[in-house]
Amino acid sequence: MIRLYNGYIMPMTADCSIVPGEIWTDGDRIVHAGPAGGLVRPAFEREIDLRGGLVIPGFKNAHAHSAMTFLRSYADDLPLQSWLFDKVFPHEAKLTPEAVYAFTRLAILEYVSGGITACFDMYFHREAYASANIDLGFRTVICGALSAGDSLSTAADDYERFNKLHPLIGYRLGAHAEYTADEELLRGLAGLAHEYRAPFWAHNSETKSEVAGCYERHGMSPTAYFDSLGLFDYGGGGFHCVWCDENDMDIFKRRGLWAVTCPASNAKLASGVAPLGRLAARNIKLAVGTDGPASNNALDMFREMYLACVLQKLASGDAAACPAENMLYAACSAGARAMGLPDCDSLAPGKQADLAVIDLDRPGMRPIHDMAKNLVYAGTRDCVRLTMIAGRVVYENGEFPGADAEEIYAGAEKYTKEICGQ
Amino acid sequence: MIRLYNGYIMPMTADCSIVPGEIWTDGDRIVHAGPAGGLVRPAFEREIDLRGGLVIPGFKNAHAHSAMTFLRSYADDLPLQSWLFDKVFPHEAKLTPEAVYAFTRLAILEYVSGGITACFDMYFHREAYASANIDLGFRTVICGALSAGDSLSTAADDYERFNKLHPLIGYRLGAHAEYTADEELLRGLAGLAHEYRAPFWAHNSETKSEVAGCYERHGMSPTAYFDSLGLFDYGGGGFHCVWCDENDMDIFKRRGLWAVTCPASNAKLASGVAPLGRLAARNIKLAVGTDGPASNNALDMFREMYLACVLQKLASGDAAACPAENMLYAACSAGARAMGLPDCDSLAPGKQADLAVIDLDRPGMRPIHDMAKNLVYAGTRDCVRLTMIAGRVVYENGEFPGADAEEIYAGAEKYTKEICGQ
Repeated sequence: MIRLYNGYIMPMTADCSIVPGEIWTDGDRIVHAGPAGGLVRPAFEREIDLRGGLVIPGFKNAHAHSAMTFLRSYADDLPLQSWLFDKVFPHEAKLTPEAVYAFTRLAILEYVSGGITACFDMYFHREAYASANIDLGFRTVICGALSAGDSLSTAADDYERFNKLHPLIGYRLGAHAEYTADEELLRGLAGLAHEYRAPFWAHNSETKSEVAGCYERHGMSPTAYFDSLGLFDYGGGGFHCVWCDENDMDIFKRRGLWAVTCPASNAKLASGVAPLGRLAARNIKLAVGTDGPASNNALDMFREMYLACVLQKLASGDAAACPAENMLYAACSAGARAMGLPDCDSLAPGKQADLAVIDLDRPGMRPIHDMAKNLVYAGTRDCVRLTMIAGRVVYENGEFPGADAEEIYAGAEKYTKEICGQ
Repeated sequence: MIRLYNGYIMPMTADCSIVPGEIWTDGDRIVHAGPAGGLVRPAFEREIDLRGGLVIPGFKNAHAHSAMTFLRSYADDLPLQSWLFDKVFPHEAKLTPEAVYAFTRLAILEYVSGGITACFDMYFHREAYASANIDLGFRTVICGALSAGDSLSTAADDYERFNKLHPLIGYRLGAHAEYTADEELLRGLAGLAHEYRAPFWAHNSETKSEVAGCYERHGMSPTAYFDSLGLFDYGGGGFHCVWCDENDMDIFKRRGLWAVTCPASNAKLASGVAPLGRLAARNIKLAVGTDGPASNNALDMFREMYLACVLQKLASGDAAACPAENMLYAACSAGARAMGLPDCDSLAPGKQADLAVIDLDRPGMRPIHDMAKNLVYAGTRDCVRLTMIAGRVVYENGEFPGADAEEIYAGAEKYTKEICGQ
């Protein structure tokens, strides 16, 4: 059992309010969260002095291609098409499982040092990806990425395999996107969604041209098209949702779908600003993701929260749009439910011990008028003092217990050179 | 003498290229920057192992109201007018020199922990502000902020006083803005600019309504109005420059004026996106600022660089717009010249020893394809390992040598409570 004491807790059981108190963990679970006066103290293996810090549920990165760390800063400041076809695709074709393992481990160091405790990931070589997560004690949900040419049985096999593989690993049905799928495959996926009573996920309405192409091919938007095939009969959601129209939002609302916003990627690739105000007005469920480091280039949920809020203000011309606390809740608590991790959404007895400790003794966290606004508008990775996943400390004071950071950096550099040259 | 060795240098004497090498300092100056093979080694007081890190000229925050730290996260997510008139102005009226001293010290901790080595600041109680900077060894240039009701002699006195006060302190002529000045005062300032052959600075074209108001009052834009009074005859520049038109840019070009962009503040207050692409096309000189922490809310040049680039891509619909290396150069090197600190613009013998050490052993800095793009698109404050100003280490490994951070936090909280209540 571990005790975190002498600080504050933002449990996010309902909102972003704060209580003084302690967190007690037992194995991978929280057994107490709140004031501890009068409780009988068990024997703790370790007691961690929060020194006035704040415990929050860890950030949930609800959309990423983690292993793309190898393309960070490799091809920036290029038009989207040359970026994708000249720089990204040819190098991805050279990826091996060993390389994905190395690049994923680098991403995980970035995640845990930024207070991120889980990732909803879509990429190749899922076996190697899962191994990297298990080896470093990081929680992940793999999203299927079926594209034309893939076999439907892969999705069924992956679903069965990864959902049983390890407590830290999950799998959700998914296609890469409408524009990379074929209809037979999508109909097969809809059959699986019905068989498993499972949600369905895909990139959706990321760019204007993607939506225009879908109208040309199918006479409707990606959301309407997926829905017409029965893919959303058990829920799910879409990644990006920049160009969703009113009809799409009706479908999101009716099916209880999640919109996962990726503001940094959408800004850097000039894709647009997702209509978060209109989504919120309809109470459509929102989660937040970084997308991959090739397009972002950081895997940093502080940046995503901040951008989501200020881009909404800018796009709507309304400085009151998109209040910080809503975004913090989406990034930490709601994201867990989006990924199908309801046990990771808050700090309460019985929940998974997935949390981050925010150091309030950093200049940007002072003074303390409003903690949620401090975190969203002035929060940075340097405020993260400790990250715990499933009851295990994976980051603390700049160090990575249980991980050899130097070896991971060296491995990532080695495979990057093999793939990208020089 | 101090030696920084075993790393890399981005001297920014011309561009953002990198060389392996050492930095040697003597007093407040750099005496060597580059490969040190074959040189006779002097006796160093201290030798700092860079451990493969990168030395850059420190960031120059070219526009701020540093002491507004006390309003950080106090009044976010509000429309601009209620923010300004209900929350900012009434509390600023309660400021004392002691409070400004306390709030400035907090800002300086934030600056140095984020690799910022100088600030171009505009605010009240300039004496107390200067003292905080001197006491913590931070470099600052104070910008006059004359408004209607102020006396012209204040500007002359401040100019004489602060430019002689201390090597770390400077002063430039300035008015708060067109909309808060009266013409007689501005004509007086133009007289001073001529007398001192000095540049003139002001908030300029931050919001659309500011420009519209200036047209109503004077039949021209703020830039044209200032220029018509002779204020720019010896150069200077404008803070924000969001709504500059083609004629304004002609004046900027003709007068050699600096545009200081503050993208975070402009986004959060929904003021707009500065036309950096069009400014760059005309080779108008660019620097970068955070604006005050009330509107930002962080004093973080990593965030400003990142935002400046991605907002330009988003606004122009062109992912190739505003390349990272240009922004890094503006934020570190050009900013120094904007503020009138030509000795702080690069790492070369004879220059001031103002620098930041970037830790490349942080996950977001790997792999290393392109250092400038890593810094702009994935850089965060947690990569700053050391900050030096005028040859003195003011930040190192999370600590603030020569400053009592706990006392500074406590002081800021105390005065914040006095002013904001509860």
